[in-house]
Amino acid sequence: MPSPVTFPPDLPPHIVDDAVRAALVEDLGLAGDLTSQATLPPAATAAAAIISRERGIVAGLRLAAAAFRLIGDGIKFEPLVADGTTIKPGDVVARVSGPARLVLSAERTALNFLTHLCGIATLTAAFVEAIAGTGAKITDTRKTLPGLRALEKYAVRCGGGSNHRFGLGDAVLIKDNHIAVAGGVTQVLAAAKANLGHLVAVEIEVDTLDQFEEALAAGAKIVLLDNMDVALLKRAVAINAGRAVLEASGGVKLDRVRAIAETGVDYISTSQITAAAPPLDLGLDIEIRT
Amino acid sequence: MPSPVTFPPDLPPHIVDDAVRAALVEDLGLAGDLTSQATLPPAATAAAAIISRERGIVAGLRLAAAAFRLIGDGIKFEPLVADGTTIKPGDVVARVSGPARLVLSAERTALNFLTHLCGIATLTAAFVEAIAGTGAKITDTRKTLPGLRALEKYAVRCGGGSNHRFGLGDAVLIKDNHIAVAGGVTQVLAAAKANLGHLVAVEIEVDTLDQFEEALAAGAKIVLLDNMDVALLKRAVAINAGRAVLEASGGVKLDRVRAIAETGVDYISTSQITAAAPPLDLGLDIEIRT
Amino acid sequence: MPSPVTFPPDLPPHIVDDAVRAALVEDLGLAGDLTSQATLPPAATAAAAIISRERGIVAGLRLAAAAFRLIGDGIKFEPLVADGTTIKPGDVVARVSGPARLVLSAERTALNFLTHLCGIATLTAAFVEAIAGTGAKITDTRKTLPGLRALEKYAVRCGGGSNHRFGLGDAVLIKDNHIAVAGGVTQVLAAAKANLGHLVAVEIEVDTLDQFEEALAAGAKIVLLDNMDVALLKRAVAINAGRAVLEASGGVKLDRVRAIAETGVDYISTSQITAAAPPLDLGLDIEIRT
Amino acid sequence: MPSPVTFPPDLPPHIVDDAVRAALVEDLGLAGDLTSQATLPPAATAAAAIISRERGIVAGLRLAAAAFRLIGDGIKFEPLVADGTTIKPGDVVARVSGPARLVLSAERTALNFLTHLCGIATLTAAFVEAIAGTGAKITDTRKTLPGLRALEKYAVRCGGGSNHRFGLGDAVLIKDNHIAVAGGVTQVLAAAKANLGHLVAVEIEVDTLDQFEEALAAGAKIVLLDNMDVALLKRAVAINAGRAVLEASGGVKLDRVRAIAETGVDYISTSQITAAAPPLDLGLDIEIRT
Amino acid sequence: MPSPVTFPPDLPPHIVDDAVRAALVEDLGLAGDLTSQATLPPAATAAAAIISRERGIVAGLRLAAAAFRLIGDGIKFEPLVADGTTIKPGDVVARVSGPARLVLSAERTALNFLTHLCGIATLTAAFVEAIAGTGAKITDTRKTLPGLRALEKYAVRCGGGSNHRFGLGDAVLIKDNHIAVAGGVTQVLAAAKANLGHLVAVEIEVDTLDQFEEALAAGAKIVLLDNMDVALLKRAVAINAGRAVLEASGGVKLDRVRAIAETGVDYISTSQITAAAPPLDLGLDIEIRT
Amino acid sequence: MPSPVTFPPDLPPHIVDDAVRAALVEDLGLAGDLTSQATLPPAATAAAAIISRERGIVAGLRLAAAAFRLIGDGIKFEPLVADGTTIKPGDVVARVSGPARLVLSAERTALNFLTHLCGIATLTAAFVEAIAGTGAKITDTRKTLPGLRALEKYAVRCGGGSNHRFGLGDAVLIKDNHIAVAGGVTQVLAAAKANLGHLVAVEIEVDTLDQFEEALAAGAKIVLLDNMDVALLKRAVAINAGRAVLEASGGVKLDRVRAIAETGVDYISTSQITAAAPPLDLGLDIEIRT
Repeated sequence: MPSPVTFPPDLPPHIVDDAVRAALVEDLGLAGDLTSQATLPPAATAAAAIISRERGIVAGLRLAAAAFRLIGDGIKFEPLVADGTTIKPGDVVARVSGPARLVLSAERTALNFLTHLCGIATLTAAFVEAIAGTGAKITDTRKTLPGLRALEKYAVRCGGGSNHRFGLGDAVLIKDNHIAVAGGVTQVLAAAKANLGHLVAVEIEVDTLDQFEEALAAGAKIVLLDNMDVALLKRAVAINAGRAVLEASGGVKLDRVRAIAETGVDYISTSQITAAAPPLDLGLDIEIRT
Repeated sequence: MPSPVTFPPDLPPHIVDDAVRAALVEDLGLAGDLTSQATLPPAATAAAAIISRERGIVAGLRLAAAAFRLIGDGIKFEPLVADGTTIKPGDVVARVSGPARLVLSAERTALNFLTHLCGIATLTAAFVEAIAGTGAKITDTRKTLPGLRALEKYAVRCGGGSNHRFGLGDAVLIKDNHIAVAGGVTQVLAAAKANLGHLVAVEIEVDTLDQFEEALAAGAKIVLLDNMDVALLKRAVAINAGRAVLEASGGVKLDRVRAIAETGVDYISTSQITAAAPPLDLGLDIEIRT
Repeated sequence: MPSPVTFPPDLPPHIVDDAVRAALVEDLGLAGDLTSQATLPPAATAAAAIISRERGIVAGLRLAAAAFRLIGDGIKFEPLVADGTTIKPGDVVARVSGPARLVLSAERTALNFLTHLCGIATLTAAFVEAIAGTGAKITDTRKTLPGLRALEKYAVRCGGGSNHRFGLGDAVLIKDNHIAVAGGVTQVLAAAKANLGHLVAVEIEVDTLDQFEEALAAGAKIVLLDNMDVALLKRAVAINAGRAVLEASGGVKLDRVRAIAETGVDYISTSQITAAAPPLDLGLDIEIRT
Repeated sequence: MPSPVTFPPDLPPHIVDDAVRAALVEDLGLAGDLTSQATLPPAATAAAAIISRERGIVAGLRLAAAAFRLIGDGIKFEPLVADGTTIKPGDVVARVSGPARLVLSAERTALNFLTHLCGIATLTAAFVEAIAGTGAKITDTRKTLPGLRALEKYAVRCGGGSNHRFGLGDAVLIKDNHIAVAGGVTQVLAAAKANLGHLVAVEIEVDTLDQFEEALAAGAKIVLLDNMDVALLKRAVAINAGRAVLEASGGVKLDRVRAIAETGVDYISTSQITAAAPPLDLGLDIEIRT
Repeated sequence: MPSPVTFPPDLPPHIVDDAVRAALVEDLGLAGDLTSQATLPPAATAAAAIISRERGIVAGLRLAAAAFRLIGDGIKFEPLVADGTTIKPGDVVARVSGPARLVLSAERTALNFLTHLCGIATLTAAFVEAIAGTGAKITDTRKTLPGLRALEKYAVRCGGGSNHRFGLGDAVLIKDNHIAVAGGVTQVLAAAKANLGHLVAVEIEVDTLDQFEEALAAGAKIVLLDNMDVALLKRAVAINAGRAVLEASGGVKLDRVRAIAETGVDYISTSQITAAAPPLDLGLDIEIRT
Repeated sequence: MPSPVTFPPDLPPHIVDDAVRAALVEDLGLAGDLTSQATLPPAATAAAAIISRERGIVAGLRLAAAAFRLIGDGIKFEPLVADGTTIKPGDVVARVSGPARLVLSAERTALNFLTHLCGIATLTAAFVEAIAGTGAKITDTRKTLPGLRALEKYAVRCGGGSNHRFGLGDAVLIKDNHIAVAGGVTQVLAAAKANLGHLVAVEIEVDTLDQFEEALAAGAKIVLLDNMDVALLKRAVAINAGRAVLEASGGVKLDRVRAIAETGVDYISTSQITAAAPPLDLGLDIEIRT
């Protein structure tokens, strides 16, 4: 069988429009763009290019498109690259043209989405590249910014990363506190099995190899190895012998992620790629018409 | 006259509750916290401390409080420090106790707000400290994350920074494109005066000393000096002779902000403190009670 | 190890209040309860009992409580049984007292939730009882009424049922059309593996034993056996030999569910328990006080 | 004068789009349709038919259309029959074609609306048919599912039924408790008249012929005869002599509705047609393209 | 029988809180009350009286109360009179005390509701007083301000007026255009009867006595006599002989309303009392503490 | 330099659609336009003109357009004049045509916006005209109707007026209570300067010339002269000598506004133009087709 196709990431339309509409309202307030209203003739038009000042990965062009569409009638937005593409300084990622007031009113909202999501995709891609050739995948966490989770996880996919659960309601991650209250690893896994439907994936976090072996014995299918050093991770991989999916987590930084990946774990999760990704530097350069 | 009191920053309650409610819904989905439901007895209780792992400035405790209040009935949240306080590793910023399920369900939402806003306050304070003793102030920009502007600007205030305008609808900032369309600095300032009410503050961005002098001659009261080096800024301050409020902007980083401040400008704006602030590392440590 | 505790079902508070508030607005319109306003003195009070006219299972008392709480100040609501309890004709499930206008204004909203959810719990319990002693569990589907999914799935849990996925975003169910487009069972499972994170549970629906064997060979962990008769199901269970979790589905009615369960499948899903459950007959009997 | 035209039922557009958008968000969650994203190539297209497996009455095609329109761009939806039409097994009610991912993502939402509303219309039509030739009309109640009232009452109209009031704010229905508090039938009708505007219709519920005669004497224009048997209803019709509009209510089932109608009452109300209508079995059959 | 009690008007709580919350958000924006934040110490408290500068009727105190409750914690609001009360210049209608920042932040929102609704109640009362002793009642129209209809109609009731329908969905008013399209008065009334449920009140507007007689003959129960002078109205009352409820409408001003009332019509509707009522002059006088 | 262009007022699209959608929902309720549904054939079409019965200024045509667009598909709306235009009795301001049901369903919502906003623009223009040739400008206040502020302030601009601040969050207005708490004019201005960013305009209200001189000495740039008579205002203008922008306020009526303007103040604010503007009389005249 040929290797399966990997599809480009997809972003549900309802997420895009709701997020952008709210962002425009936040920026425009009751009065709208006072500067444009006071200084630009209503009939003035503008043509502009969104240009990158940095090397990085594109993510979020549909949000930029929505900002220029939802601000009012008359703007044409033309993306020149697809999300997931690598860009270098000077590359034009999209062209925008239409009423000058509207173009300038939506500029900052479009860029705030774009620079943030491109920043996440770019940092994710750096982690992904750092472990290229190992069998491991980079995955995200729930350490995302309030209100932006669906978008940030989409950007992770644009950067080649994989998504961990989206929230508390779509999968189970049993942590130390759950284990302690339930009375142990075996007990907590039994409780999870007894109280959950068959479509809920269950992962358990372990701190030690003893806990890990107890989890495997209790039938754990996905195990998070928390804050283990490379030596411990290697031993866990050996003990596992392919039984459970293994995720390494805890203090994962770019400079040591390859060493972690080479231990043979399946996934490496890090909050760095969402919560700590700096924005990618993109700008809107305008040439005025009429 | 004694020096005027500077008040601690304030955050309107409606902003807090709306933001936190939305974040909880985002995280809980339709099913709620499956892990807690499946592993923790309903009657289990927990007491916990929110502890800092880093040195920094606190911002956003009311958001954390709201997360633990809005998740359901029965949690007691006790802040131990005030927003704006400097904390060091190991400091407890708040204590939480109540039903274990609810405490764990709200934990991530509370921390996602708190680590982000403390991160902004902490980086802002670093900029503020770097220019201590000069007459300049650090101020933010509109480069904020969609949906989080009011909160991020509050965190800037917690860090000792000052707020630039909140959006397009509350003040005017005339940039290069507005000047170009309007036909020049003098013309654009006249247009602004003709089309705006008397309660709208107007700032104009200039790139050169020629533009700056034209702006002053046209009566500009607030001028943004864009991307000028220290030598140019000094000349602008001299030319200004106290007439306009001066803001320096463009590529402001922590290592050169003091040099900029020492030119004598009044404000230094930077997007670093919002868009590029790394989260402050805080965690929730739990001790379980039956 | 003792058998793990099964916890009573839980319903996130934010789901309750949002649903009830919307239902009250729907019923009250702009004018409010015209009948009560026009015929009941403002100071009149009422005490009432919510009584069952049928045998059934209780589900949704917190929604009834919310209706009487959100309608206005002054009502006392006291549940006498817990959700999941079996009741018989004449049993009082809750007592309500307070301003007569408010009690009558919220009555229908409270009962509309309660009779619907009790109906679902009651029918679910009938299915569960029908297969008692077999190892199978009853589970629901996505055939729920728009806007009521979280509540209906909660009622299924109250009746002793298990929940299938909550929506398209929390688990994967590969059906005939996905298989056809992807080019076959093996290919579609490979595509799912390549494009999904490790916290997403994947179930595949098969129509024939050939498909089933192909799915097992390709590593399927959860398989839906669609519209198979009892003989086929038995053969599937034998072939499976405990490898995958098996769900039987398709035209499951109360009179043949036990036969299906006795084939040895793990789950039996049916839309009957949500979409076709008749309401349980409950009423509010009032005794008036000054 | 010729008999007046009866118009087909109408459904306000704002009701349709708001309900469908909310239902899509409920089903898609943050992640969207994971199955389609992971298994279907973005460019795959599908053409499908919505087919009935049962005899029934169509209601709600505009909701199905909205589901396929609001899910994203590119789907063509073509209804083949009008709401209110009788269909038999095998009839195609609509055709859908477009991007395969979007067609499958919206399928369940479209069908959940359609099967529920067709179920209501079908059961309503059965009641209407059962009393054909009598002068009576079938009407609904406020026993509807929270959030779905406008849609369910529309489906009643599609089935040939008439609508009772839509909520507490658009008409008055005086029940036993209102009568008791107000001090009697005469007093409560006087109170209603004194406290209501002239555009509010007032109906009063009576349990006995004595109450009925008192209501008529007090000028009642619309009277609900509650839980009266056929003999009592006949006597009420005779006493009434055409003065008030008469509605029979209470335990109305399909097998005895004709006997009730033949008593000469004007309206027969029943909660069966909304709260207890089983869904009509419709499915989406897909043929894949490219 | 004694004359029936007329109850004081009632306003559904959900209308109050939703309207006030939206108004506060409108006024506070993202930044909140900048003036109070910048000039008042957080610990400052204030005690204030809401005082009338004019003679009028109170309406809307619960909205003012909600503004001071929803702005934040800590304000005590004490109403001193009830809605519907007549006040004279200098009368204190409520007392407010609590954190000075919060009192001043909510002041304008509270007063904007109060002055508008008191204005409506006061003008309504003037119309009501003008026709005292006649059998007629003053009623409102749908000429209300967008978003404020439920509140404005409540204020009409506070002033002693009666409410016409609340919107297009709760009663029928057949106007000239409907008559023209339907082919005449008789036809349009037949169409209404054929297409509407029995709980929908139907009023028809007529311009001439011929139309009026045709409407009566066709069984009209409520008739709006549009733009008829006093002589015509008297003839209509005579022709009617008590059969239909009669409403006079069209250009009704305060100086001629009594003459209209004395013709014997039952209701007189006017848009003056909502759309053209000047605000009542009330203010908040503050005494500062600590 | 030629005199700067004054641009026609602009209204952000998101304000328009959100306000109109809410108004339609308010009017249509759950049932929609019962009258049109019951009396007009679905296929009937109508063409209509919106005509003024009075002399006035147009404001709000985009809201009327939105009402006819958002009510459903198929209406053509053609404005014949621009907002800000002077109209006289009989002038047609717009033409509407399409499905008769939809035209009549949206009529009242469109007119309620239009008559209110035209009323505000018309009264504003009367004030503006009254002071023509003086250097003063008319400006509004925060005494607006809840939920309508952005629209009412837009109408003020249509009438030639200028806007005061939009809310508490976009500019500072220090009043007597703030001064009292802060300990005096000098102190309060110092506190404002210390606690506010450089983009916040600060105005201070003074009651006496002593306060005024203290404010000027403390560097006040915008001063509101509250309730001063013409003689005092003249003295204030003389004392000011061009230093601060001066606003006169308090009891400003049309008959004395010119005298105030001739004192030399820059702005005259009045709540009359928003809170007390009577609606302009416009109507929709329909000619029916088919």
